[in-house]
Amino acid sequence: MTMAIDEDRLDETFAALASSTRRAILARLAAGAATVNELAEPFEMTLPAISKHIKVLERAGLVTRGRRAQYRPCALDAAPLEEVSTWAEQYRPVWEARFDRMDDYLTHLRQRRKVGQPDA
Amino acid sequence: MTMAIDEDRLDETFAALASSTRRAILARLAAGAATVNELAEPFEMTLPAISKHIKVLERAGLVTRGRRAQYRPCALDAAPLEEVSTWAEQYRPVWEARFDRMDDYLTHLRQRRKVGQPDA
Repeated sequence: MTMAIDEDRLDETFAALASSTRRAILARLAAGAATVNELAEPFEMTLPAISKHIKVLERAGLVTRGRRAQYRPCALDAAPLEEVSTWAEQYRPVWEARFDRMDDYLTHLRQRRKVGQPDA
Repeated sequence: MTMAIDEDRLDETFAALASSTRRAILARLAAGAATVNELAEPFEMTLPAISKHIKVLERAGLVTRGRRAQYRPCALDAAPLEEVSTWAEQYRPVWEARFDRMDDYLTHLRQRRKVGQPDA
């Protein structure tokens, strides 16, 4: 389970994702770039509040902003999400083992039924 | 990109994962259950400090503890990590599109070379 992972960066990514509002902003940006004003509207938040969330996402590298356009539209950068997925996938054998154990148990129960043993 | 996801639970999972120490504890527990004393040693942390981290992981459902055993060994529960993976995988088309665009660009450059156009 060793990987070349930037731990500090991952700290920042996970912290940025620990907010349903920020995750909703990312979901909105997956549909296309948007200005801060456009983002503020559906979330019924003040501009300063939404700006604060966007700054957290920007620091984590999840959002990039246009440099020259007047309204500096926000765009999603999904690269850190690929890192999150890669990190979590390390544990797939662990969560799959859970299901395997459950399968084994159910097979075991079925076998016992077949040979006429009591269930309990 | 809609999924049946418990947003509050995901908030807690991501917050718990936003610490390289807590992620290292999970990696250690993936190798097998361990007592708080056993966990404290490799991390060179005091027992209260490691206990605090374990409580955060427990609240997030990432660690379960034996109820009856004297030292209440900690065990990994990878179920929330599967949710993290599922959540992040929603964005796979976005990060893959990045690479597709890069591929297209490189193909475009190669095509221009072939027909003898200048690169710049």
